[in-house]
Amino acid sequence: MDDDELGAALREIVGPSAVALAPDLNPDDLHDESLHPPTTTPRAVVRPGSTAEVSALCHWASAHAVPLTARGSGTGLSGGASPVRGGVVVSFSRMNQLLRLDLDDHVAVVQPGITLRELNDILRPHALRYPVHPGELSGSLGGNVNTNAGGMRAVRHGVTRHHVIGLEVVLIDGTVVRTGGPVVKLSSGYDLTQLLIGSEGTLALVTEVTLRLSPAFAHSATVLVPFATLEEITRVVPSIVTSGLEPSMTEYIDLVTMRAMTDAASLELGVSPDVAGATTAYLVVVLETRTGAQLERDLEDLAQMLEDAGALDTYVLAGGVAQRLIEARERMFWAAKAAGADDIVDVVVPRSKVVDLLSAATRLAHEHGAIVTGCGHVGDGNVHLSVFLDDDERRDALLHDLFAYGLTLGGAISGEHGIGRDKQAPFLALSDPALIDLQRRIKAVFDPAALLNPYRLLDNRPAP
Amino acid sequence: MDDDELGAALREIVGPSAVALAPDLNPDDLHDESLHPPTTTPRAVVRPGSTAEVSALCHWASAHAVPLTARGSGTGLSGGASPVRGGVVVSFSRMNQLLRLDLDDHVAVVQPGITLRELNDILRPHALRYPVHPGELSGSLGGNVNTNAGGMRAVRHGVTRHHVIGLEVVLIDGTVVRTGGPVVKLSSGYDLTQLLIGSEGTLALVTEVTLRLSPAFAHSATVLVPFATLEEITRVVPSIVTSGLEPSMTEYIDLVTMRAMTDAASLELGVSPDVAGATTAYLVVVLETRTGAQLERDLEDLAQMLEDAGALDTYVLAGGVAQRLIEARERMFWAAKAAGADDIVDVVVPRSKVVDLLSAATRLAHEHGAIVTGCGHVGDGNVHLSVFLDDDERRDALLHDLFAYGLTLGGAISGEHGIGRDKQAPFLALSDPALIDLQRRIKAVFDPAALLNPYRLLDNRPAP
Repeated sequence: MDDDELGAALREIVGPSAVALAPDLNPDDLHDESLHPPTTTPRAVVRPGSTAEVSALCHWASAHAVPLTARGSGTGLSGGASPVRGGVVVSFSRMNQLLRLDLDDHVAVVQPGITLRELNDILRPHALRYPVHPGELSGSLGGNVNTNAGGMRAVRHGVTRHHVIGLEVVLIDGTVVRTGGPVVKLSSGYDLTQLLIGSEGTLALVTEVTLRLSPAFAHSATVLVPFATLEEITRVVPSIVTSGLEPSMTEYIDLVTMRAMTDAASLELGVSPDVAGATTAYLVVVLETRTGAQLERDLEDLAQMLEDAGALDTYVLAGGVAQRLIEARERMFWAAKAAGADDIVDVVVPRSKVVDLLSAATRLAHEHGAIVTGCGHVGDGNVHLSVFLDDDERRDALLHDLFAYGLTLGGAISGEHGIGRDKQAPFLALSDPALIDLQRRIKAVFDPAALLNPYRLLDNRPAP
Repeated sequence: MDDDELGAALREIVGPSAVALAPDLNPDDLHDESLHPPTTTPRAVVRPGSTAEVSALCHWASAHAVPLTARGSGTGLSGGASPVRGGVVVSFSRMNQLLRLDLDDHVAVVQPGITLRELNDILRPHALRYPVHPGELSGSLGGNVNTNAGGMRAVRHGVTRHHVIGLEVVLIDGTVVRTGGPVVKLSSGYDLTQLLIGSEGTLALVTEVTLRLSPAFAHSATVLVPFATLEEITRVVPSIVTSGLEPSMTEYIDLVTMRAMTDAASLELGVSPDVAGATTAYLVVVLETRTGAQLERDLEDLAQMLEDAGALDTYVLAGGVAQRLIEARERMFWAAKAAGADDIVDVVVPRSKVVDLLSAATRLAHEHGAIVTGCGHVGDGNVHLSVFLDDDERRDALLHDLFAYGLTLGGAISGEHGIGRDKQAPFLALSDPALIDLQRRIKAVFDPAALLNPYRLLDNRPAP
């Protein structure tokens, strides 16, 4: 099919204004936020406006063996939405509406292109929220579904798959199917919703997402706690979780990362110089409650636990500072990027093993001549490390060793960013071949010609 | 293979004391708690003692095309664990140990045969619990995984799939694979753990389950609230959930069911005759908190909401009575069975649609000459109905219509009991054929010769 035929076919399906053809493509549509941007250019970028258009697109792509790469907001960090040569990028930027909001059922039905910020703005007046908080609020719900996004509130609220209860998806042959629905309990056949969540656009195109919402809390407090050692943080966090205080966030931030974050945000936290001088790492705890009285009581009990655990001090941050600190933490990726990080990884291990993982990271950094700094969701063992080492080969070796060590601790390569293109090699090298084989055969059930997001995740054929 | 060869092969795999051959089978191993017990007898019941034995068993079954039916405690209600002619029942009663308990990580690793009661007895001294509460405490964790069991605490804590984070399973060819692990976040390939949960023993045999535990609450109260109409209950429940009170249970119990429950338990609830006379249905709310002060405050706010919603009275039950009421609710199935119920169903709909579903149930009961009574998890729309109508054909017609109506409300045929054998016909008749086709092709990936729990769920070939 030549370029004219391609353009005509796509314009017929999604309308002339929703098709861009190479070379006249918006560069913003051609990469995610991976630190290793792709150099490949697709043949076209299309913006379907409806499920029917997505269905027609899939039907056409099947007939002509054209690869499709689904794209939300492009905020992914693993190259999972990066285009492939000869393919078509399917951007969901126009399918970004709230379709239904059931206040009694706490259910929202959204199109995949809606962002977390847009959704939460809609929900706020109703004292409801979608509790998953990956930090990057410009991320789309469709992207969140495809990576099973996690984020800072997972220690209390879980991750995307705990709040997505139904999907509408388009199969590669154009068939539209609905999985799950607006119900929290389900025992009626295989849970295809759950299989699709985290599948990185390789099984089907998501055209509608049914979400379970949660009540927003009326009261909250953010507590900043400097500690002399990271070990003290990883010791106190399990006891905070066990106490029943139900913290909404338990983040650790190492010194280097905290400085980069506060500098980037011009943020003054008010930590006394004496305390700052003795600090190795900070713990940030967010408590959220229904009543003010409960918050006060919880804060007292938390402060006592922290003091007993050796906290150098405990700062309950004023509202404005608290919000700016969390926002700075959300933008940690950008601070790391600005500082010249060569890779960002998000290994997950059991929370009691975070110290072991970070010790290994320090040792590996030393062996490979790298600098590794970080922060992370210490309550759920999901550690974000910035790796500074510009030699690709040595960095790959370091990451391979780090991932392998994380796996020996009972963890996984990625807790929330996904595998995509960037982590494909270590993922395939370190996974049980029987598990990869099962997944590839499931992939073939959905997409026998391997047209959906090819050369990513399980598909390690050499890309054209 | 004649009976002697079969016996010899099985004894070789699991040891002589772990094999029973027909006709010398314990009848307790040959049915679950479906009200329609099977009449088929398997060739043998075996009790493997290890994953290696399960693997050898699968390898042997594959080689000789012998169907395998996994069995936990046999407390299922859908005929999902009922044996098939010519097959072998694989009972996990010997594989019932806690393998690991990580107190800091809130992770337990168990064998599938352990019961909910055994697990919670182990966890209690550690102030931890496995929060899923299907009621039948003699149920096994393996059975819970296979039906994605839900229960009374789902309104706060979700269902089995929200607390199972890893599995070890044996594929039909004998391969042992591990999915997930002791981590809450995961974005590293397709989530096979989630695909296996709720698959009713048709994809693989579960040999190990990794669970995420929760802190137990120190304080709790059970509130019994009589209402003049069911509509008032279904109106107040969403507002209780929205309030942020985070009730652990919100159960409705209709008059007939309450009488059957309290009679069976010889339980005196202390409801005044005046109030009882005006009552159509009861709401039971359980609150659980970290502190006594919070519980008092929450109870006050709850009582106010209930009064505003038209509650006839509000009884905070004394500890002993509260426990006996919840236990009576857990045993509702047995009360219904004793009363001669011909079927028990557990349709799930959005919670705002419970009244619609129950109105339809009343109308359908009238049309078909049946009596339908019930109770249910009103916070999550999962309604348990006892159907009294001994004509199989008319009962099937009633249930088909009821299920179909539940689906139009956005619900599903089963919220937590599963499809098994009993609900297979309406499930296949009422599901989207494209979804059934996908599921059957996934089944073929795992079990191409259809040896695992055949003639159940998706497999509607005529059973031998």
